[in-house]
Amino acid sequence: MTGRQLHLNAFLMNTGHHEASWRLPESDPYAHVELSHYVRLARIAERGTFDSLFLADGPQLWSNLAQRPAGALEPLTLLTALATATEHIGLIATASTSYNSPYNLARRFASLDIVSGGRAGWNIVTTAGKEAARNFGLADEPPHAERYARAAEFLDVALKLWDSWEDDAIVADKAAGVWGDDSKIHPPRHRGTYFGVAGPLNVPRTPQGYPLLVQAGSSEDGRAFAARYAEAVFTAQQTLAGAQDFYADLKSRAARAGRDPAHLKVLPGIVPVLGSTEAEARAAERLLEDHIVYEHGVDRLENLLRLPAGTLELDGPLPGDLPPESAIEGAKSRYTLVVELARRDRLTVRQLIGRLGGGRGHLTFAGTPEQVADRIETWFTRGAADGFNIMPAVLPSGLDAFVEHVVPRLRARGLFRTEYGPRQTLRERYGLPRPANQYLTPAVS
Amino acid sequence: MTGRQLHLNAFLMNTGHHEASWRLPESDPYAHVELSHYVRLARIAERGTFDSLFLADGPQLWSNLAQRPAGALEPLTLLTALATATEHIGLIATASTSYNSPYNLARRFASLDIVSGGRAGWNIVTTAGKEAARNFGLADEPPHAERYARAAEFLDVALKLWDSWEDDAIVADKAAGVWGDDSKIHPPRHRGTYFGVAGPLNVPRTPQGYPLLVQAGSSEDGRAFAARYAEAVFTAQQTLAGAQDFYADLKSRAARAGRDPAHLKVLPGIVPVLGSTEAEARAAERLLEDHIVYEHGVDRLENLLRLPAGTLELDGPLPGDLPPESAIEGAKSRYTLVVELARRDRLTVRQLIGRLGGGRGHLTFAGTPEQVADRIETWFTRGAADGFNIMPAVLPSGLDAFVEHVVPRLRARGLFRTEYGPRQTLRERYGLPRPANQYLTPAVS
Repeated sequence: MTGRQLHLNAFLMNTGHHEASWRLPESDPYAHVELSHYVRLARIAERGTFDSLFLADGPQLWSNLAQRPAGALEPLTLLTALATATEHIGLIATASTSYNSPYNLARRFASLDIVSGGRAGWNIVTTAGKEAARNFGLADEPPHAERYARAAEFLDVALKLWDSWEDDAIVADKAAGVWGDDSKIHPPRHRGTYFGVAGPLNVPRTPQGYPLLVQAGSSEDGRAFAARYAEAVFTAQQTLAGAQDFYADLKSRAARAGRDPAHLKVLPGIVPVLGSTEAEARAAERLLEDHIVYEHGVDRLENLLRLPAGTLELDGPLPGDLPPESAIEGAKSRYTLVVELARRDRLTVRQLIGRLGGGRGHLTFAGTPEQVADRIETWFTRGAADGFNIMPAVLPSGLDAFVEHVVPRLRARGLFRTEYGPRQTLRERYGLPRPANQYLTPAVS
Repeated sequence: MTGRQLHLNAFLMNTGHHEASWRLPESDPYAHVELSHYVRLARIAERGTFDSLFLADGPQLWSNLAQRPAGALEPLTLLTALATATEHIGLIATASTSYNSPYNLARRFASLDIVSGGRAGWNIVTTAGKEAARNFGLADEPPHAERYARAAEFLDVALKLWDSWEDDAIVADKAAGVWGDDSKIHPPRHRGTYFGVAGPLNVPRTPQGYPLLVQAGSSEDGRAFAARYAEAVFTAQQTLAGAQDFYADLKSRAARAGRDPAHLKVLPGIVPVLGSTEAEARAAERLLEDHIVYEHGVDRLENLLRLPAGTLELDGPLPGDLPPESAIEGAKSRYTLVVELARRDRLTVRQLIGRLGGGRGHLTFAGTPEQVADRIETWFTRGAADGFNIMPAVLPSGLDAFVEHVVPRLRARGLFRTEYGPRQTLRERYGLPRPANQYLTPAVS
């Protein structure tokens, strides 16, 4: 296996990424709180030698219960359980910088990294929406820019905490009765705008030093943050040209920030709907669309676009006078993506809901395994992706089909590993170096 | 098996509760961050049909590294991993009401309760000490009474969040496209002194309704809190008479609070040091004392008693003019216990450090398995305990010895289960009812 290699991440979500997936006969409507469901998914992904699996999250109850499965096991908890049920695959949990404290969260990720033998990753989110804010004593979400300013300070503190023990701080000299070397402990003593954290952390430095840092916001603030901190970026891109622009932009931002652009991996999302023929794939897609409750989709779209209830008509277009992204304090990049998708393809509200039903703005692609492999190879070789965030429309069957039929084709083309290397950390699997401890003077080579 | 039954909890801590345990040849000085160590301990405890196991915690790095193993995996993370490695045993994690937010913590315990099939317990602590406070933006610990006021409000919010889904809120009607019943969701809409939490929680009601609620502070504030909320109480008691007083006091407080006193279980701690003869047990105890570094003990004792460094002399008594408990803002009940122990037994500082080395104020008892079983039976039958918090001086060997030699004696006397019942929750194992949902009108029977 030589040459540049693809990275694949399995984005796991209940019964699948299609909003109607829970209604299919094969789906377990209680899957969202069943460990056995997630163990099964993790093992399928590991059979497919995926780099990692990933759980999205927000600290609030989304949507109305009537519409679709709501609620989820807390991601770090679930990933800890999955760590014991798997051996190789990376475990990426979403956690919010707006609604956690750095000390507790840094410690939890350090603990997961130790328990999993160096397989932890953190998808860093700032958490849009007043629903979350109101669970943490706030009346509304903080402004977008403030959320990102807090996120940057959060990361600076967390990185100091993770480095607060040198790797060899434990001496374990039983005869002398000396367990550790206090000169190798570095309390951050941080006092900033949002946080005061004396430290040190109460967990030793971990196998990876710290979890793989992942980010997914594509707004201006989000890209600036990613260029500075992220080692992998999840992104929603609908077209090759758009994905190429995003890829080039992020890599050049990373370079301008003094980083090696190869150390920032870009992974667009794709919702593959597979069939052994094109017609079969389209039929599978239609079956899912037939299970959408369109009235619910209208509610959610009005919510995303900040429109009063009752504004949208199912068989009409989006209004022409929507506000610009700069006026949106919530999920900026998702807002723009949805509006652009509707305008570019001249979609009615109904058609837009159908398109969003699968991937909430991510690229949905119905086709044969060969066609999906082609699409992945094209984006990978033409400067649009370092890998993909695989978002099966239906789970477990969609992930199983991808592993059975697409992964072998990617392997045959020399694009993807055929087996896991011996005892690699998640960061090693993504081809990234273990970070140096910031408290140590860099050695002169 | 009839009659009142003992409850046993295994208090797990690194290489054991004796501060010098890590220096023994058998001990692994890296045990504190090794999952395999804790898996081994959990399985030993499960072989002994213990009710539960327990992890203490504080969000700060204790002591100097030179002195003894410091730092620990975050308890809920570690217990989640242990949930997958065990089948029956309860899993009790310490978490602070002063340094967590109710939404996040309620969700994490709900997730552990689901993942473990109803085996989660929460040891509720308010966290003394400025070291922790300084990791969360505060200059010093909040006053004792304020910490307990916040804890009470924290519990009220958490209980509402855990009840915010009725047990049958999920409908899962695929044909109608209706997943849940929104009328069975009850957002707490809490606005209090310390917290504002709209809710609802984003996790369904759990197997136990909510985790078993455990408490361990024995100060006036702590007892009042326990009487109101706790279902099990860990306590440090040095004498039968003292334990009987504490037991009677807590039970009557629970009754005065309108609760069934049988639904509050009192579990004193005991550090058993076992030998096949009394002489062997005493030799094992002496071996541990020989490994204590007494200078370190002086530092810690001065810290606990709020004395300037250099005040205490190893072979002298404690000063006569120590402040009363009411002047202490930190760990009140531990302060009083240590002072009373030294005065009652007229101990020198050196002797006091030796006594505290094993159990930090808990009862250390060196003897044969028969003697330990006698002690347990006496306290259990004479109104001092509903069970015990077993704190082996050395781990895993001390837990293994207890399971091999003491548990069979307790079983033979008809005091303790010989096997686990089929699929019990932790609360069922402690003989407690599943709590009703506070948002439902109690049914008339």
